[in-house]
Amino acid sequence: MDDDRPTSPRSRATPLAPKADKDTVRRHNLSLVLRAVHDESALSRAGAAARTGLTRAAVSSLADQLIRGGFLTESGKSFSGQAGRPGTMLTPARTGPAGAGVEVNVDYVSVCVVDLAGTDRVRLTEHLDNRGEPAADVLERAARIAARAVDSAAEQDLRPVGVELALPGLVSRGTVRQAPNLGWSQVEAETLFGEAFQRLLPNSPALRVTSDNEANLAALAELWFGSPAERVEHFLYLSGEIGVGGALVVGGELLRGAHGFAGEIGHAVVDPEGPRCRCGSRGCLEQYAGQLALLRSAGLDEDSGIPGVAELERRARAGDESALGALADAGRTLGIVLSGAVNLFDPEAVVLGGIYRALTPWLAPAADRELTRRTVSGLWPPDSGRLRASSLAGDAARGAAGRVVRRVLGDPLAYA
Amino acid sequence: MDDDRPTSPRSRATPLAPKADKDTVRRHNLSLVLRAVHDESALSRAGAAARTGLTRAAVSSLADQLIRGGFLTESGKSFSGQAGRPGTMLTPARTGPAGAGVEVNVDYVSVCVVDLAGTDRVRLTEHLDNRGEPAADVLERAARIAARAVDSAAEQDLRPVGVELALPGLVSRGTVRQAPNLGWSQVEAETLFGEAFQRLLPNSPALRVTSDNEANLAALAELWFGSPAERVEHFLYLSGEIGVGGALVVGGELLRGAHGFAGEIGHAVVDPEGPRCRCGSRGCLEQYAGQLALLRSAGLDEDSGIPGVAELERRARAGDESALGALADAGRTLGIVLSGAVNLFDPEAVVLGGIYRALTPWLAPAADRELTRRTVSGLWPPDSGRLRASSLAGDAARGAAGRVVRRVLGDPLAYA
Repeated sequence: MDDDRPTSPRSRATPLAPKADKDTVRRHNLSLVLRAVHDESALSRAGAAARTGLTRAAVSSLADQLIRGGFLTESGKSFSGQAGRPGTMLTPARTGPAGAGVEVNVDYVSVCVVDLAGTDRVRLTEHLDNRGEPAADVLERAARIAARAVDSAAEQDLRPVGVELALPGLVSRGTVRQAPNLGWSQVEAETLFGEAFQRLLPNSPALRVTSDNEANLAALAELWFGSPAERVEHFLYLSGEIGVGGALVVGGELLRGAHGFAGEIGHAVVDPEGPRCRCGSRGCLEQYAGQLALLRSAGLDEDSGIPGVAELERRARAGDESALGALADAGRTLGIVLSGAVNLFDPEAVVLGGIYRALTPWLAPAADRELTRRTVSGLWPPDSGRLRASSLAGDAARGAAGRVVRRVLGDPLAYA
Repeated sequence: MDDDRPTSPRSRATPLAPKADKDTVRRHNLSLVLRAVHDESALSRAGAAARTGLTRAAVSSLADQLIRGGFLTESGKSFSGQAGRPGTMLTPARTGPAGAGVEVNVDYVSVCVVDLAGTDRVRLTEHLDNRGEPAADVLERAARIAARAVDSAAEQDLRPVGVELALPGLVSRGTVRQAPNLGWSQVEAETLFGEAFQRLLPNSPALRVTSDNEANLAALAELWFGSPAERVEHFLYLSGEIGVGGALVVGGELLRGAHGFAGEIGHAVVDPEGPRCRCGSRGCLEQYAGQLALLRSAGLDEDSGIPGVAELERRARAGDESALGALADAGRTLGIVLSGAVNLFDPEAVVLGGIYRALTPWLAPAADRELTRRTVSGLWPPDSGRLRASSLAGDAARGAAGRVVRRVLGDPLAYA
């Protein structure tokens, strides 16, 4: 697992001590300059020197190398502050190295290509039912969708240098240990996807394929790409899909747990003798507030997928009573489970993503009431805004692509 | 809140860079040598040099100053490894600076004085009922008990240099925000205790009084003083008392949460419409598995306190059916709630402390069954040992005293 910290605004990036090996120092400083420009969106050479603590001459040499390597572009005029003397601005390249993220979920596959500035440049989503299909077939189909997205990126002169898979289950070292809603167990997802992808693009260099849990990546997307005004560094992220995933972020980093499986709030027990869950337990949260339960309880076909969720939203907006009742019930159950998580973990905010994002206006009031009533610190006043919908950017494919981009920013020479 | 890291075996202590201010460097290096000796229990000067990376000459000068200040003693003979040449060993002083911890709980007050080696040297516990008493009276009584313990310590030539309070509630900046089972709200515990303590020992220098949640401190005691063979750095600690407290430890450090109130597992919802809890919510875990509920459900007087708990244990040991039934029911409820916490937080172990420690043989089987059934990672096989009783050392007063000692180890000059 790579470090997600390199470009956090909090990280105090400093030049390496001069006694480190010369090539290592240059490599480190190339990343330092690239990250400074990325974090500020645009910087003059003088600004980059001020921000990194490197000399102006060193920054110029490093910036030139980053421009030649296709990581930065230099353009426009700015005023450097030195009495009106015009300068040019460094910006992350809009072409060249990019990151690809592939979310393989229960009823859709979504692929996203993000450039070095962090912008979502290609998005390809297919709604389909991955349940009951052999894992190899699902991953091969995902690879076909990803290959198409890579073709689209190529038309924009973007070249993904790695692929990260976002998977709805327990992911460890490239393998899906369990993905109950897909019916997967011990699936070597990275290898299967990578081989299929390579067969589809035989003339491309083999891309490094990595993977993580989808809720973890959606939480990182929220952190990296969400609204700066709403940015929190300590939150619980909930991803409503057919399963209910979750992730914990502490100080701007994922809390992974002892085995990498933290965040699985979807299997909190609502009723110990409740309906059987795909995980083998009974009465788990996702049996009450997952997509299938929500649609069913609103009188919709539980297998109607995203169109069904859109219909639920439409009915709620129109004041349909069974839609509103289903959402209030699910919101109340979410609130009860969330109060336990809030008492345990004391986050600044709880962020609702996936299908919950659009449904938050109807889920949140009931959930918020339970949180106010049950948060023992008394720090959950009504309508505090601590329970909120994720930003549009907070999705797993974008987080996955963003992680690849972060790897490039962390060591551009490795991708030159 | 001070840093609990200084003496963790994981902390990579290194000498400060030579350009730092000379006094700062010496101050830092005094702590470095003292902590090295503390962590190893005994070290030769050569061993201390090897462990800290300081020169032998520097270590000798620092060790001499620490001996003069009463932090280290030098004694015995050892073989330094240099072809049988005898040397002496540095050990933490058994007299002089010490830490005092005062746990003020719902039905007892326990005071502990720990020396620089981390040994529990004085323990004074009084069982009494603090419910319904004015907070100032409770804290004054605690100060009287603490003053007696300090007198005992003085007879052993130990001089507590600070007092840390362990309190059963939400503690922030010296104030108890909420302690539902004591009926406290917004109690300035540090000030009230400190003033009472000063009145009792008018000739002593005023001691710095600090405070934290009792489960946090018990978890730290488990980490610092528990069996090295069972040591884990990522665990959930549960403290069974009249309330049920909890703490999360990640990588050997407390996870405090956004406001410092993480760990409150006692208010996880078992039944949303269950009995009213002192916190204002309904159906909280402590209404099912707290001390009062356990005693009541076993047919004992819920207010029989620690003697009642001892009687419960005796009956369970004798095979009494209502005792065994009450413990199995509470164990099952604990297991259901813990499975949610384990799925969310993915700890290596769950440690049962407080009254649960002695009751673990009868609570754990039912709890473990629920954990096996409901842990979604599948990583909770039956009887895995991941659910365990705390060590005897894992109590809040000891953790509180240990924190004061750690402050001394972190900057001995401040206490010279």
